Amino acid sequence: MSDDDVSTDYQVTARNRVRREHQRGRYDRKIVHAILDAAPMCHVAYVIGGAPYATPTLQWREGERVYWHGSAASRFLREVDGRPVCLTCSLLDGYVLARSAFNHSVNYRSAMVFGTARLVTDDAEKTEALRRFTEGLFPGRWAQLRAMTSQELKATSVLWMEVEEASAKIRAAPPGDPDEAGVPVWAGVLPMRTTLTPAEPAPEMPEGAELPASLAALIASGRLR
Amino acid sequence: MSDDDVSTDYQVTARNRVRREHQRGRYDRKIVHAILDAAPMCHVAYVIGGAPYATPTLQWREGERVYWHGSAASRFLREVDGRPVCLTCSLLDGYVLARSAFNHSVNYRSAMVFGTARLVTDDAEKTEALRRFTEGLFPGRWAQLRAMTSQELKATSVLWMEVEEASAKIRAAPPGDPDEAGVPVWAGVLPMRTTLTPAEPAPEMPEGAELPASLAALIASGRLR
Repeated sequence: MSDDDVSTDYQVTARNRVRREHQRGRYDRKIVHAILDAAPMCHVAYVIGGAPYATPTLQWREGERVYWHGSAASRFLREVDGRPVCLTCSLLDGYVLARSAFNHSVNYRSAMVFGTARLVTDDAEKTEALRRFTEGLFPGRWAQLRAMTSQELKATSVLWMEVEEASAKIRAAPPGDPDEAGVPVWAGVLPMRTTLTPAEPAPEMPEGAELPASLAALIASGRLR
Repeated sequence: MSDDDVSTDYQVTARNRVRREHQRGRYDRKIVHAILDAAPMCHVAYVIGGAPYATPTLQWREGERVYWHGSAASRFLREVDGRPVCLTCSLLDGYVLARSAFNHSVNYRSAMVFGTARLVTDDAEKTEALRRFTEGLFPGRWAQLRAMTSQELKATSVLWMEVEEASAKIRAAPPGDPDEAGVPVWAGVLPMRTTLTPAEPAPEMPEGAELPASLAALIASGRLR
């Protein structure tokens, strides 16, 4: 069975097995992919000198590869090449208020993927990865922009990891204490939602540089990407 | 000078020095505190068996201590006691669209704090920490809830870290390419905002369990905590 067959689950290993609230664990590729694709950002954990770091960045996915990028001058990106990383995307969907402090919770979707970070070294491959990143966020935009200069390309690092192991955790439910439903205290969910708000044009815009329909549609869609 | 003097900056060290886009770096305690307090969640990075993990959780702060909690059965919380951790809070505030791919960016506020994780072992201290966590999110709620049972307390782990080093990074600006402002392509910011949406009462609520005014006020405030 190919790794790209999304109908197969990720293998459950010592590293990716969900232990805490294990009933919320998911190993379905399609679920993990959907969270990686819906979250506008991720946190990449890595180890330098034995110490942990969690760095926020924007990720994009192609099959079982997850990409991120940044400045070629970044300590993180220079040192992370060839090292194990854990890339986590988390979407907080709401506070869950129960009748007891203990049963308070949050609704969320999170995906944790493990692999080895690799720098993209080929310039054409790097350009193509950045094109797909830009087009993934803002369809049609790449063609509207001037070409990247070789200096800009050199100043940009792109990293990727093959997903070796992965798991997702999801909670999407009312309070989990129906046995205490008679307690006269308000219980329920305070849902949380992130949306794009009206665009703020740059102050120096020339006439004729209208907001493209694709960006207007993204804002109107209620999605973040 | 006391560590609790918020008018002093965090010391800049090899670990917390912001290198990539260093002009966005901030070491001001008040700025770091404000991000830790505004972000509804964080990612905690830690190392187990030489491998990195980034785990999402909810944090709360008291002075220079940052707390988080979880199930006592959690591998993460059991193994992290006494270990170095990096706790990162990130708030994504918008996409920044420039005239070139290279100058595309995001507006954001992030804080990265370093320290050593410690388990709270005293039951009274643990209860008090959980009370402050609950009250910090939902003022007045602790008094409305039944007391935690000793079994519930035992099943809950609370961890804290003294902030040893910290830094913040902030970008809050239009596209950084005014020299290309004449290029006839739309440029600007697509701001992003996370808000609480109308409360969803639990299905089993008894009569008389109304939404408290403090929760209604939180929802109306536009804040997340």
